[in-house]
Amino acid sequence: MNTPCIALLLTGNELMSGDTVDSNSAMIATQLGEHGLEIGEKCTVGDDPILLQSALARLSDQYPAVIVNGGLGPTRDDLTSEVIAALTDVELTENPEARAHVEDWCAQRRIAPNPANLKQAFVPTGCELIHNPLGSALGFAIDINNCLVLTTPGVPSELEAMLPALVTHLKARVGGEARQILRLQTFGIGESSVEQRIKRIATRWPSAVTLGFRAGMPQLELKLSVPSIEDIPAQETARALLEEDFGDHILGENSTRLAEKLQAVLRNQNKTMTTAESCTGGLIASMMVREPGSSAVLGTGFVTYANRAKRDQLGVAPTTLKEYGAVSEPVVKEMLLGALHRSGADIGVAVSGIAGPGGGTEDKPVGTVWIAWGTQDDLRTHTTVVSGSRSLFQNLIAAACLDLIRRHLEGLPPLPHYFTRQA
Amino acid sequence: MNTPCIALLLTGNELMSGDTVDSNSAMIATQLGEHGLEIGEKCTVGDDPILLQSALARLSDQYPAVIVNGGLGPTRDDLTSEVIAALTDVELTENPEARAHVEDWCAQRRIAPNPANLKQAFVPTGCELIHNPLGSALGFAIDINNCLVLTTPGVPSELEAMLPALVTHLKARVGGEARQILRLQTFGIGESSVEQRIKRIATRWPSAVTLGFRAGMPQLELKLSVPSIEDIPAQETARALLEEDFGDHILGENSTRLAEKLQAVLRNQNKTMTTAESCTGGLIASMMVREPGSSAVLGTGFVTYANRAKRDQLGVAPTTLKEYGAVSEPVVKEMLLGALHRSGADIGVAVSGIAGPGGGTEDKPVGTVWIAWGTQDDLRTHTTVVSGSRSLFQNLIAAACLDLIRRHLEGLPPLPHYFTRQA
Repeated sequence: MNTPCIALLLTGNELMSGDTVDSNSAMIATQLGEHGLEIGEKCTVGDDPILLQSALARLSDQYPAVIVNGGLGPTRDDLTSEVIAALTDVELTENPEARAHVEDWCAQRRIAPNPANLKQAFVPTGCELIHNPLGSALGFAIDINNCLVLTTPGVPSELEAMLPALVTHLKARVGGEARQILRLQTFGIGESSVEQRIKRIATRWPSAVTLGFRAGMPQLELKLSVPSIEDIPAQETARALLEEDFGDHILGENSTRLAEKLQAVLRNQNKTMTTAESCTGGLIASMMVREPGSSAVLGTGFVTYANRAKRDQLGVAPTTLKEYGAVSEPVVKEMLLGALHRSGADIGVAVSGIAGPGGGTEDKPVGTVWIAWGTQDDLRTHTTVVSGSRSLFQNLIAAACLDLIRRHLEGLPPLPHYFTRQA
Repeated sequence: MNTPCIALLLTGNELMSGDTVDSNSAMIATQLGEHGLEIGEKCTVGDDPILLQSALARLSDQYPAVIVNGGLGPTRDDLTSEVIAALTDVELTENPEARAHVEDWCAQRRIAPNPANLKQAFVPTGCELIHNPLGSALGFAIDINNCLVLTTPGVPSELEAMLPALVTHLKARVGGEARQILRLQTFGIGESSVEQRIKRIATRWPSAVTLGFRAGMPQLELKLSVPSIEDIPAQETARALLEEDFGDHILGENSTRLAEKLQAVLRNQNKTMTTAESCTGGLIASMMVREPGSSAVLGTGFVTYANRAKRDQLGVAPTTLKEYGAVSEPVVKEMLLGALHRSGADIGVAVSGIAGPGGGTEDKPVGTVWIAWGTQDDLRTHTTVVSGSRSLFQNLIAAACLDLIRRHLEGLPPLPHYFTRQA
């Protein structure tokens, strides 16, 4: 590792008790990583001046820069400024710019500044303020011996808003060069499968490109990272290699979500969709409606958990239900046709399964699901068994249903790797 | 703080790069906290033998016990055993019990143990194994000077399964007494409101009881903690004080979820419910169906995002839609009556709103929502404006809809604090 190493000091009793899961440090590391800045050590302590001071003394001795996160608020538990003043042997003095910021912040909220608010205007003498566009607590930059110490608030949105300024301070001090990062969102393929495929084509993989993964439920993000802008062609070569093997699993760049991608495809084709959900209970429709603009592509959905609902809302024949059972190919077919007919949508998906933990039989164990998708003239079905918890089952199946419609509309191979591997 | 202090050393490149948010340390802290054991410092480093060794040397010098999490897997990045062997100046030797565990684990998966698997049977000579009921990597306990070092795997489910054994080791070494903890799940009230109310009754609050909060979306957990079993009466006094002020906001103990509670109430009253959703797009129904056993209480739901769907699926009159608009009291009333009639359910909820970011007007800004709930004979409505993102709006409104049905069925005040505060 030739990248500059920075230490991160997090403070807060809520981080020690387990009441809060720390997501700030991941946010900082991700953002810094894009600028070639690396975190070498993270240290977390409670709101205790002795622990905080000894941790900061140690880290500022070992690293060229330390980011302190938390402890800048208005309460007496917020100790960062005091501890830094003690370590650098300076006073806490009222900074006029900080005072104006706190007063403005209070004025915007139509409250009179109280002593707790105004405490935030007191910072170590000689520090350089870091603007907080969202909150009352300002951060600051100060040297402890030769270490650059940057303070930031614990509120995630405020921290996020201050990260660009942090990066500027850090690059000026410790260097670091922006890496070029391409993020590809995929669905239906796992980390190990991607790794195996890349091993097979290892000789063709450009050496400048580092491949990383971030597993999000239900998507997998592939991160193609290169050191500099000259390596963009290598990055594109790597992207082409990935597309060659499983381009149909790639949804898009950056943070593209499955439902967002499907909405875009539907809009492009000027089509609408519908859903007929039993075991997912409305989850598929709600994933679509979570995306802004969904009214253009999804007008009607059906939650037909009970057999009566499948009959009354979708027109599934009682004899079909009786003969084949609710979790069967004929039933999901009739559910889909009923939903298409009654909603007037162009394309749809119907799903019926046994989410568990009860309800399984020898023939149809918990996790069995039947899916029908497509149009009145071009309808497909598939069955599979998903093991795992009820909620994992629902999340995976709902995502797969969206993907099946996307594949249908785009004329891609009908089934993702996720299903074909099992077949 | 008189409680024994333990250090936590986390290792893994994915924790440093920001690719993984660490939830293990919160899990450990929560579990240990229930036994009066406290984490004094958390330190996180990547898979680097020098950083790992220097961090462990420092922590084992400063604390009576250190838990190491991560670095026990089969790959060459997993360095914990090596680093500990180097620090304690012992060899890594193959432990027969560990070897048998790895072989069993592979046999269960019908795979032949490879060298990477078998590497996990090599542990520092003289250590005591800690059983891993789920994974191949065993943990172990060993002394570094006078510090008890406990190693654990990074996979959360495996760590969780090993926590009871960890607690036993720690209590034998550093003491700690189990605290008695009562967790109450609430909906519709915020941390600051609870704090204000408790301030008002401070003189009646039993001093043995510590009140903590854990904000989960959309619920708020209240944690009533007392030092010993003799303080249970004080804990019950505190519970009664909380119930006096906002008993109708308390859903239940431990991890009770809103939908779970509502399902229990419906089952007790032998009733079924239905949903007619516009802006939440199936989310309310899917929250119910996420709970096992939901088939008994929710058979049919309607996702009627488009006006056409409100007409065709629910029988809302075109004139009502035209005269009042889709987000209006008359429309949600007709949606609810239509849903009750067509599903045959006993009680239901209908919701129509402007989730944003587009679609707002001066009269009806983004975040405006109309809700109707109840039965054919006893129907109520409410309107409010929720500011925040589209997804926050949907989550809050969906949860509130479930709570409104619960309140109706239980004969509680119709509106939670969340709504009345705004009124």
